[in-house]
Amino acid sequence: MTLKVALLGCGNVGSQVARILLDESEELAARIGVPLELTGIAVRNVDAPREGNLPRELFTTDAEALIDGADVVVELMGGLEPAGTLIQRALRRGASVVTGNKALLAARLPELTGAARDGGAELLYEAAVAGAIPILRPIRESLAGDHITKVLGIVNGTTNFILDAMDTHGSQFDDVLAEAQRLGYAEADPTADVAGHDAAAKAALLASLAFHTTFDLENVHCEGITEISADDVAGAAESGMVIKLLAIAERTTDAEGNEGVNVRVHPTLLSREHPLAAVRGAFNAVFVEAENAGELMFYGQGAGGAPTASAVMGDVVSLARGLSAGAGGGGEAQPRPTRALGIEESTTRYSISLEVTDETGVLAEIAGIFARHGVSIETMRQTVTADENGGHARLRFITHSGREAALASTVAEIEQLPVVETVSSVVRVEGK
Amino acid sequence: MTLKVALLGCGNVGSQVARILLDESEELAARIGVPLELTGIAVRNVDAPREGNLPRELFTTDAEALIDGADVVVELMGGLEPAGTLIQRALRRGASVVTGNKALLAARLPELTGAARDGGAELLYEAAVAGAIPILRPIRESLAGDHITKVLGIVNGTTNFILDAMDTHGSQFDDVLAEAQRLGYAEADPTADVAGHDAAAKAALLASLAFHTTFDLENVHCEGITEISADDVAGAAESGMVIKLLAIAERTTDAEGNEGVNVRVHPTLLSREHPLAAVRGAFNAVFVEAENAGELMFYGQGAGGAPTASAVMGDVVSLARGLSAGAGGGGEAQPRPTRALGIEESTTRYSISLEVTDETGVLAEIAGIFARHGVSIETMRQTVTADENGGHARLRFITHSGREAALASTVAEIEQLPVVETVSSVVRVEGK
Repeated sequence: MTLKVALLGCGNVGSQVARILLDESEELAARIGVPLELTGIAVRNVDAPREGNLPRELFTTDAEALIDGADVVVELMGGLEPAGTLIQRALRRGASVVTGNKALLAARLPELTGAARDGGAELLYEAAVAGAIPILRPIRESLAGDHITKVLGIVNGTTNFILDAMDTHGSQFDDVLAEAQRLGYAEADPTADVAGHDAAAKAALLASLAFHTTFDLENVHCEGITEISADDVAGAAESGMVIKLLAIAERTTDAEGNEGVNVRVHPTLLSREHPLAAVRGAFNAVFVEAENAGELMFYGQGAGGAPTASAVMGDVVSLARGLSAGAGGGGEAQPRPTRALGIEESTTRYSISLEVTDETGVLAEIAGIFARHGVSIETMRQTVTADENGGHARLRFITHSGREAALASTVAEIEQLPVVETVSSVVRVEGK
Repeated sequence: MTLKVALLGCGNVGSQVARILLDESEELAARIGVPLELTGIAVRNVDAPREGNLPRELFTTDAEALIDGADVVVELMGGLEPAGTLIQRALRRGASVVTGNKALLAARLPELTGAARDGGAELLYEAAVAGAIPILRPIRESLAGDHITKVLGIVNGTTNFILDAMDTHGSQFDDVLAEAQRLGYAEADPTADVAGHDAAAKAALLASLAFHTTFDLENVHCEGITEISADDVAGAAESGMVIKLLAIAERTTDAEGNEGVNVRVHPTLLSREHPLAAVRGAFNAVFVEAENAGELMFYGQGAGGAPTASAVMGDVVSLARGLSAGAGGGGEAQPRPTRALGIEESTTRYSISLEVTDETGVLAEIAGIFARHGVSIETMRQTVTADENGGHARLRFITHSGREAALASTVAEIEQLPVVETVSSVVRVEGK
């Protein structure tokens, strides 16, 4: 018995996966119990120059024929199409699929998991979230007998690199972004990273697995880090905190008490004591809270050819072991319908920084607005300054936990006060 | 179809596992695809008072009859016997087994995995290492297509609590131990924890999984933390470091170039920048280095009834999904014979603190000994003091990486120098 593996795509990750399948075939056979055979690599142009010195006879442009003879299909082409149609074809024919295609998964998870169920096949995608970090399998299997209540993830290396550098060197966003681009940590067009879109796709996948449902991008509220200033980062540091771009998925209830799950991506203040605060540079980490397990964190490299290839190979070996042990696909229940709650229903804390005219009664006026909205203040820090236009004060409030809608309307009303010159920043706070 | 689950033992963890199986049967059936039935709980005395308000008719003293009718056996009795014989019986009859019994596993892993292979059954034990932290499954499955080179684990909560408190408050070992005993973080007889025996059992299990072999306690070099003084901890802090009790398993070569794996437990100096340095209190974490995945860390609660029950239930659900999908046991290859290298063959760095008479030529004399043993010095710090007996100096050397045997003989020779009053501490160093 030999298990036939078809590879779709041969870029940075694909060529490394092909190399591992070829070079380590003996070791892999020993670990699995049966040998794996790489039957071919589907590409658009068989003659294109590529890395890894791979045998030319493996390459084909006929992806469909390759899929039809395979036990396991590894999709590393990226993009929505033709990847989506090819994965569907494989799953419906009963071939299990490994993919790292987060954009496709976030757009079409319900449809793809449905195809896997119909075909009695498995769809694994450890490489799609947080690169090499084993996070999907622990959520799907190790915590399968527990109830996850919240997931907080640093799932985008580019933005973590930028925020970490701003924290360490006090630099401005634009300068650090330029440096990150020079070092290859950020793309020439950094929008997908800095606007939070990449993190939002991963948030949808994390939420789907953690809460046994299928969410897509439309269920994710998304804010990026482009508005974060050196002042915001310095202000956080003064309070013993750090700003991280977090993907958050949380089981909660709306104002009427209906249960649901809220999924969001936004810059977030965390205490420096929080395990996520120690995640530096381009590293990723996912922090999970579960009813019985308590607090867990998974840390590692979120991107890169070799780490991603490691995650892909973990899925391939896992599938192959199951197939060699005679398991059909499945063993995974139907996803449950779960209400996606909007950002306004989430419960969070706000850090609000204001510039105000320094005159008697200002603080009382602002405190009155907080009180009318039922928002309770945890800490307030005031710094008085003065210039040729008279006295100014900078106020920084951190609230207790409250409903997002109440917090947002508090800020909106404060902004209208004549004594308030500017609301210089509003950042949500997580952790104790 | 219903999967029959037999529970052996009903202490703190066992009673919580029973409660989950009873209270969450609907949720578990939805997640697995088939219902689980708790068929009974084997205990020594059915009338003993116990927690969880469990139905009396579930209890039995006939463990063997209970096992013989089960698809999955959960062993939470602890101790070597009768747990070992009962697990063997279950595995040989083809029932898969979940256990958290690290003492038994560390003593008899080869025999138990052999029984699993013979019976075509699976043996899972996520709860045995680092409590609720999913670490065995990621190593066994997610990294199955990669090569682990090193594992560094904080796997004993009691000793981490003690070392963390010594670091935070500057206290002496004995005072913190007494406090830990008062708080319930340390046993009345703390030997198994502070002497490193508990960590050594977990090190054997981690090494076995990480390197696809079966090591037992005899292959683990073990040193505890009883000799660590407040001075050692303060000295570490001065150099931006922290002392942790680590379980270390490392692929390496001996002096003749033969490959093997070295497994050891000892107090270790780590830079405060290392992710393991941020693991506070009684938390556990396992840091893994793999060829492709790079650096990974898994963090969470290492003990406690609920976290351990969560890990046990993860294994139960995972087995049940496999059984419902028609998988036989196995899908796990034979362990490979691997040379266990002794501590003397390990490559490490030493931090060496000395009290010496402050006279001319002392440093040259000591440096000469380092040179003769081929040990290179990375940093040296000298503090000169004086009392009624004349001048003294305290010297602290941190070496570059070297073979343990050379480092140990360097220290032995330095100790014999007439100018050396005392070698006050020798601690190994890990990390960059």
